[in-house]
Amino acid sequence: MMRAAFIGLGNMGRPMAAALARAGVETRGFDLSASLIDAVAKDGVVATRSLRDAIDGADVAITMLQSGDQTLAVWHEIAAKARGKLFIDCSTIDVESARAAHRLAQESGALSVDAPVSGGVAGARAATLTFMCGGEKEAFAAAKPILEHMGAHVLHCGGAGMGQATKICNNVMLGVTMIATAEAFVLAEKLGLSHRALFDAASISSGQSWSLTTYCPVPELTPASPANNDYKPGFMTALMLKDLRLAQEAAAHAGAASPLGAVATQLYALHQSSGQGAADFSSIIRLIRGE
Amino acid sequence: MMRAAFIGLGNMGRPMAAALARAGVETRGFDLSASLIDAVAKDGVVATRSLRDAIDGADVAITMLQSGDQTLAVWHEIAAKARGKLFIDCSTIDVESARAAHRLAQESGALSVDAPVSGGVAGARAATLTFMCGGEKEAFAAAKPILEHMGAHVLHCGGAGMGQATKICNNVMLGVTMIATAEAFVLAEKLGLSHRALFDAASISSGQSWSLTTYCPVPELTPASPANNDYKPGFMTALMLKDLRLAQEAAAHAGAASPLGAVATQLYALHQSSGQGAADFSSIIRLIRGE
Repeated sequence: MMRAAFIGLGNMGRPMAAALARAGVETRGFDLSASLIDAVAKDGVVATRSLRDAIDGADVAITMLQSGDQTLAVWHEIAAKARGKLFIDCSTIDVESARAAHRLAQESGALSVDAPVSGGVAGARAATLTFMCGGEKEAFAAAKPILEHMGAHVLHCGGAGMGQATKICNNVMLGVTMIATAEAFVLAEKLGLSHRALFDAASISSGQSWSLTTYCPVPELTPASPANNDYKPGFMTALMLKDLRLAQEAAAHAGAASPLGAVATQLYALHQSSGQGAADFSSIIRLIRGE
Repeated sequence: MMRAAFIGLGNMGRPMAAALARAGVETRGFDLSASLIDAVAKDGVVATRSLRDAIDGADVAITMLQSGDQTLAVWHEIAAKARGKLFIDCSTIDVESARAAHRLAQESGALSVDAPVSGGVAGARAATLTFMCGGEKEAFAAAKPILEHMGAHVLHCGGAGMGQATKICNNVMLGVTMIATAEAFVLAEKLGLSHRALFDAASISSGQSWSLTTYCPVPELTPASPANNDYKPGFMTALMLKDLRLAQEAAAHAGAASPLGAVATQLYALHQSSGQGAADFSSIIRLIRGE
């Protein structure tokens, strides 16, 4: 029987660890917060009181944390027990830290994969996440069946850090396109054009996007939109802002220009400043509308 | 037999008039350029030497021109013969001029529809255009069977000017999303992520859009992309710039904010300044890449 250590039991990590346990993997959970550790016991996850206890005898260590520094700190701490193991980082972190984590794993004798997710808390609960993976072929081949217990799509995007690169590139498109969609609907409102008429025309035209036809920022047009539920997330403004900042950092570091990404970052920052950090990011239409 | 006057025989107007003639409508063509008039004769369109000749005995007058001023000038000139006729303006013009044209038609006793198109020259040749229509129900009902000879989708978007409003709102989404897609691919290039890996992941994720999955700005990923053909249009940068400027004007007039639309307008303007006005608008990736 496979044994996994799952480190980081927050909004995403907890349902992911639970999905792994449901699939028959012996899953030991650890978090710096004792209350989060206690909570996972009823999900079939074994609560452990230290990183050492979690990692002992595990075949795979999975981290789901909030920053590159956190991932690196945890991987450092478990490096002594790394030989022959597989390290998977599902956190969304900066590309440079992801590459550093791969180097650390390699030096410690572990296989490693960066595997940030999309799909949010709902996807984690339903085990329908998409994993965008970076790492060597052998590491990806080892990680894929494990990640499939927690997700619907497990994609190999390239070498070390390329999972993170894919996620931020996707989210530049998402974050910018959502604002463009919001601008179009607000302009329509001011011109006297109905939401429905714009939606029906653009859905079958060149303005189509996931932001329009799956996650529309105005209510009553697409069934899964947080707009139908007063912008309860979904995917929080604060997390979109984090990802766009990671993209801007990566662009600056790599010498790439991302002008609309830069303006979008500032618009989400404004939206967060006005108290909307915990609302779904599609609520950016409120900022555009001047509410 | 229905008789149509078709005024404006440029890149779009000529194949549209030809499609109408092919469908069995007696179509009389006129343009200020004599050489354009001569050219349509071999498409089965009757060449006429004056607006008066074109409009005489016509049931419907269709204009396909370059600006609101041109549409208003032509509609003024044919207003004396308007009673009982149907006026259709297929030009992409500003919303205010479109509304003024409707008022003029109404005062002259004509039914009227603003019906800007999407689908480009290829769509005009294949008679697969999308028409976004504004006007009274009765006028739309009269225009629909005529426009169906030239297009695949004929949509009623609302009252006077709402066809124009729909088109510019669609094109705000399109123009911005294309740049976001270009930024994502350029960032991917700089990070060492392959075009194919980003495309495969984002196509089934929240970054999906028509710009990505139908009209991808990098070659060899989608069959219909001008990128496959060195950015031969397609839809020219100059026309995207025109539409985004119309959207910015409409937003300013109506009191709407469109910050990403504003920056996108400036980026396409920069791109045109660098000599890319006649290239497909997806060549904006060259500007983002610094080519």
